[in-house]
Amino acid sequence: MTVGRSRRVLVTGAAGLIGSVLRSRLANDFDLLGLDAARGTGVTIVADLAKGGRRARRAFAGQDAVIDLAADSRVGAPWDRVLRNNLAATINVFEAARDAGVKRVVFASSNHAVGLYEREEPYARIVRGDYEGLDHAAIPLLTSEHPVRPDSPYGVGKAFGEALGRYYSEEFGLSVICLRIGTCNRVDRPEDAREFATLLSHADLVRLVECCLQAPASVRYAVYFGVSDNTWRFWDLEPARDQIGYEPRDDAERWRMSAPAQG
Amino acid sequence: MTVGRSRRVLVTGAAGLIGSVLRSRLANDFDLLGLDAARGTGVTIVADLAKGGRRARRAFAGQDAVIDLAADSRVGAPWDRVLRNNLAATINVFEAARDAGVKRVVFASSNHAVGLYEREEPYARIVRGDYEGLDHAAIPLLTSEHPVRPDSPYGVGKAFGEALGRYYSEEFGLSVICLRIGTCNRVDRPEDAREFATLLSHADLVRLVECCLQAPASVRYAVYFGVSDNTWRFWDLEPARDQIGYEPRDDAERWRMSAPAQG
Repeated sequence: MTVGRSRRVLVTGAAGLIGSVLRSRLANDFDLLGLDAARGTGVTIVADLAKGGRRARRAFAGQDAVIDLAADSRVGAPWDRVLRNNLAATINVFEAARDAGVKRVVFASSNHAVGLYEREEPYARIVRGDYEGLDHAAIPLLTSEHPVRPDSPYGVGKAFGEALGRYYSEEFGLSVICLRIGTCNRVDRPEDAREFATLLSHADLVRLVECCLQAPASVRYAVYFGVSDNTWRFWDLEPARDQIGYEPRDDAERWRMSAPAQG
Repeated sequence: MTVGRSRRVLVTGAAGLIGSVLRSRLANDFDLLGLDAARGTGVTIVADLAKGGRRARRAFAGQDAVIDLAADSRVGAPWDRVLRNNLAATINVFEAARDAGVKRVVFASSNHAVGLYEREEPYARIVRGDYEGLDHAAIPLLTSEHPVRPDSPYGVGKAFGEALGRYYSEEFGLSVICLRIGTCNRVDRPEDAREFATLLSHADLVRLVECCLQAPASVRYAVYFGVSDNTWRFWDLEPARDQIGYEPRDDAERWRMSAPAQG
């Protein structure tokens, strides 16, 4: 079984929004095993990854890949929660994946690892929806080569996860793909001005994760932005396109045009 | 009191090797307050920063700067120690510094945040002491622009501390200088081939930290390598020279030439 054809896939944090979206669309093509700290649809194993107990570790045995979504997903999560549910839990996931010989970890990083770039122009204006005089074709794109600039404890924790993934990739031979996921909403559309730039539609999320699971084994470590092909996006998609064939098909603008009239 | 003339300085991890070296040389010019989890020379406040209790937090009040050396300093420290003594303790240091209005934090990062570059040439040969055919004047230097490549849980923790520092700098206005300290030995000389490249002599350590404490307030966030001006060094010193005036005076080669004859 090569990494390039992952079939057995452990999903941590399976009860969350992203886990739910993935479950409903990936279940036909992959043998998914859902793990979460809470019971929920699609959760087979209830275990607290922050504690790293035996039940959690056993879930990694025989898996070809892990999609690691387990975390406190609130951008405003306080430090004690980040320390426990994001830092400690993420360490335990990589340790368990290494112990079990899992070949690939897809780590749910976040755009908040580089969120403070949005204080600078033209990003500051784009996230306010103030497009006057801006040419969307000329936006300087943020890439994974830019240094991290986290905007929150949550974002610092995601930067930590990316560094952790690089260590496990280089030291232990895991293939690690970090996805800086944009905005994924329960109602699948942008909810404010910023999200016209940052939206990752459910369908594009599924496409991106499929590409990660099917990526060639030559992908050893990568950081990709998870975003739809939005007219006003400011994150680079070329490496994800080139290296794993991610081709987003949605553009948040379609929801702008279909917005109901006010009043 | 500007950042550029820090006088009252809290030193965390004061009982360790680096704390001891700094104490003996900085005590004349700065009003040092030593904090450590263990009693020891130069330790006024015994408190566990990983717990972040009131006694630890009170030590930050009225300080102009913090030199944060508190950590499990072993490159081989296991994850549970890194999580507690490096991640949690570092979060508590930055939180306490922010709460107390401390203007500058000098964070003891480490070369191990980028240690895996040493698997590549020419670094791999340099750290083995195999100089044949190498021109030390032509070594491509590692800079703080290179992505982190931690070599250990310890190194991942230091990468975390750097990201954390950037967040506190940008979000809360702290001036944060991260020092990727090279090799600082109790006996002030290189002990193996690698250390002819990586040595930071005691005298240069003191020079570097003095520069950090006296740096202009315009230095908001920086990552510098802490290394002597070793003939075989492969870390860039130009930003530290340009921005804070660090002028190392030692070169590890002097110990090679003075090595006693074997016999």
